[in-house]
Amino acid sequence: MPNLEQYIDKKQWNKLQQWYLDHDIFEIVDELYRLEPTDLAVAFRLLPKDIALAVFENMDPPSQGELISSLRDTQVIELIEKMEPDDRVRLLDELPAKVAKEMLEGLSSEERGLTSILLGYPEETVGRVMSPEFVALREFMTAAQALEKVRKSGREAETIYLLPVTDEYLILVGVISLRDLVLAKPDAVINDIMIKNVYSARVDEDQEKAARLVQEADLIALPVIDMEGRLVGMLTVDDAMEILEYEYTEDIALGGASRPLERPYLSASVRLLARTRALWLMVLILAATLSVNVLNYFEHTLEAVVTLALFIPLLIDTGGNVGSQSATLIVRALAVDEVRFRDFFKVTFRELRVGSLLGVMLAIVAIFPVSIFFGFNIAMVLSLSLVTICVISAVAGAVLPLIAKRVGVDPAVVSAPIITTLVDSTGLIIYFLIANAILGL
Amino acid sequence: MPNLEQYIDKKQWNKLQQWYLDHDIFEIVDELYRLEPTDLAVAFRLLPKDIALAVFENMDPPSQGELISSLRDTQVIELIEKMEPDDRVRLLDELPAKVAKEMLEGLSSEERGLTSILLGYPEETVGRVMSPEFVALREFMTAAQALEKVRKSGREAETIYLLPVTDEYLILVGVISLRDLVLAKPDAVINDIMIKNVYSARVDEDQEKAARLVQEADLIALPVIDMEGRLVGMLTVDDAMEILEYEYTEDIALGGASRPLERPYLSASVRLLARTRALWLMVLILAATLSVNVLNYFEHTLEAVVTLALFIPLLIDTGGNVGSQSATLIVRALAVDEVRFRDFFKVTFRELRVGSLLGVMLAIVAIFPVSIFFGFNIAMVLSLSLVTICVISAVAGAVLPLIAKRVGVDPAVVSAPIITTLVDSTGLIIYFLIANAILGL
Repeated sequence: MPNLEQYIDKKQWNKLQQWYLDHDIFEIVDELYRLEPTDLAVAFRLLPKDIALAVFENMDPPSQGELISSLRDTQVIELIEKMEPDDRVRLLDELPAKVAKEMLEGLSSEERGLTSILLGYPEETVGRVMSPEFVALREFMTAAQALEKVRKSGREAETIYLLPVTDEYLILVGVISLRDLVLAKPDAVINDIMIKNVYSARVDEDQEKAARLVQEADLIALPVIDMEGRLVGMLTVDDAMEILEYEYTEDIALGGASRPLERPYLSASVRLLARTRALWLMVLILAATLSVNVLNYFEHTLEAVVTLALFIPLLIDTGGNVGSQSATLIVRALAVDEVRFRDFFKVTFRELRVGSLLGVMLAIVAIFPVSIFFGFNIAMVLSLSLVTICVISAVAGAVLPLIAKRVGVDPAVVSAPIITTLVDSTGLIIYFLIANAILGL
Repeated sequence: MPNLEQYIDKKQWNKLQQWYLDHDIFEIVDELYRLEPTDLAVAFRLLPKDIALAVFENMDPPSQGELISSLRDTQVIELIEKMEPDDRVRLLDELPAKVAKEMLEGLSSEERGLTSILLGYPEETVGRVMSPEFVALREFMTAAQALEKVRKSGREAETIYLLPVTDEYLILVGVISLRDLVLAKPDAVINDIMIKNVYSARVDEDQEKAARLVQEADLIALPVIDMEGRLVGMLTVDDAMEILEYEYTEDIALGGASRPLERPYLSASVRLLARTRALWLMVLILAATLSVNVLNYFEHTLEAVVTLALFIPLLIDTGGNVGSQSATLIVRALAVDEVRFRDFFKVTFRELRVGSLLGVMLAIVAIFPVSIFFGFNIAMVLSLSLVTICVISAVAGAVLPLIAKRVGVDPAVVSAPIITTLVDSTGLIIYFLIANAILGL
């Protein structure tokens, strides 16, 4: 296996450069991502010039941002100038405002113009990630004329696989795929062969929603229009995939009690790793102090029957797991728009039944062995608690993400870890109330 | 908001059909997914015939499979006949073997042939999801001749945006995008304008790996070759997106102590929901009995100082959260190939440092309030336990997925829930050992 780190440590620059020549862009980016930040800068500067641009374009914006700070100004301007406008905007977002401003000023006026258009839209909107360079056709063109126009002005556009058709006021009236255009008879008129019922996204729409439309409707590109229906850009399938990939990573991180790392694991410093995770841990441990108070309140019960303490981890783990299951399902269903807030009661009722089924199942499994080792009364307390905790956890796990969505918070935020912590204290209260009742304490 | 369920409940067939005419395929699929299985069958049968096919093609294979069983045979054959071969194979995998066999026999011999080719490859391989219909060019053609060939035989192919170039033995020698072909001079020779350093996937390669290549290298399609380098199919970007979407859903489900649901939440029955979740819950509750044994072993310590029980939920939650954070990061990094098994010691050392940093931070926060309310000794026990548990959890959360990957198990299986449960018992042992030492029990 190649190991760029070793080449750099041993200063074997010839071997490193030979390795670059033997591998493709994609493999190079992969290996660069496995280097610590300082090594990355060294490795990048040794790339042959023509490869360097392609490698740079294929890196994540945060890694690009880090690299920029270690390169000479002329190199930087050259790299930035050659990027697609939408990729450039994503990089600028990563940089400190002062650096971003300098960089913009270094661009040619044409490229600066294209970039500024995108920068004018709010973050997270389609406007930020669309490509402002496209080839638009007119309805009255023939297929041959249209192909001629694509030949003439297609080099600048990020995609020509979906060609938007507009009227004289630039209002989007249809689209035609390059495929249909090529397969059409040369004298066919665009108006007759274009698709008129077109998917499109408003420029101020949420990125994720537009990206999901591209995926679910299997589109190669999506026209982007302004409030008046005028064509302003195209969202390409590869940009849509990148947006979805980021959203998944974010949802997965939140489900694991963390924030997204935004860069490859090995190239992040230990301090960054700790910082990314510290905030959530603090929030969760503060929430967990609630369980200390609950147990403190029931300390007499605990003192009377210490055996009750033995089942605390098992009960709260089970509650946490059932809650996580519901939350995971619902967060995912909300993300892909399979469930909406108006399904609130439907979802609640379903989870109520699922929670009961699961609780009864677990109670049946638990009751015999616990009866044998700890007596029938303890077994009853445990079984009843399991059923109640499963029901409450299942419902809470489903309802909280729905409410979060309703009030405009990312549902993934209230997924597994938060629900686990909240369900803990509730579960403990139920457990001790049932114990007090059955054991007559 | 439209509500198909109401139309069906009230038997307002006219309104339902009008609603179909007013909406596009994608919106119709979205609404159908929100219906219970029996309503879905009714709603589907009322679709206008020409729309029905498009709607069917846009549904998930499990939903398609369910629908099939409620339709008449002639309808079924018509739907299946018109699907792309790779989509058809995915549907056949969902159906009981007997039904799948009957269906294959009903197909025209050409479509049956294409389907059988794909069915010949093992599940989860690229062969199963590639499109066997493509337009291949030869090196000596001119751009004009190539375009002519695309015009003639491009209608059958699933994609013509990336055109593979082969020699006389069908060995893949290059590719050219339709874009470059259209933009090229008509008399340019393919050999001079094609890309020779081509990304490709072996037909027996893992689907996810190939799909990830499509995403990371921003490809519109990926040629698929057999062991001898002969072209056998193309993997298109929309199929790649579908594969990745499925893998994400699976990883997210496993991270939430569940298996993937494989169909829209609202269209799954309560029994299916419970069944999907029951197995994992049973495994986890059995693993949690370990914690009962640990606490049973330390019952004397607990009886002597009941206060120790108060911190059990807080400690095991924190251990679980730190472990989940590491596991989530590493599972994701493994999935996108940013971390490999050979990074074992690097990763372990990093998590060791991250865990220590986080543990010390939490200990500092905890020590003062706990001293005030429960005394200095208890505070010392708690703080030392927090540090040790954070270190162990961080390392375990990172190491277990790496080992799983090494032995060929999906790393997502050992993510959050399993690690939480395993770390619980270890954490409790540490806690009570420290308590015994400091409190002199």
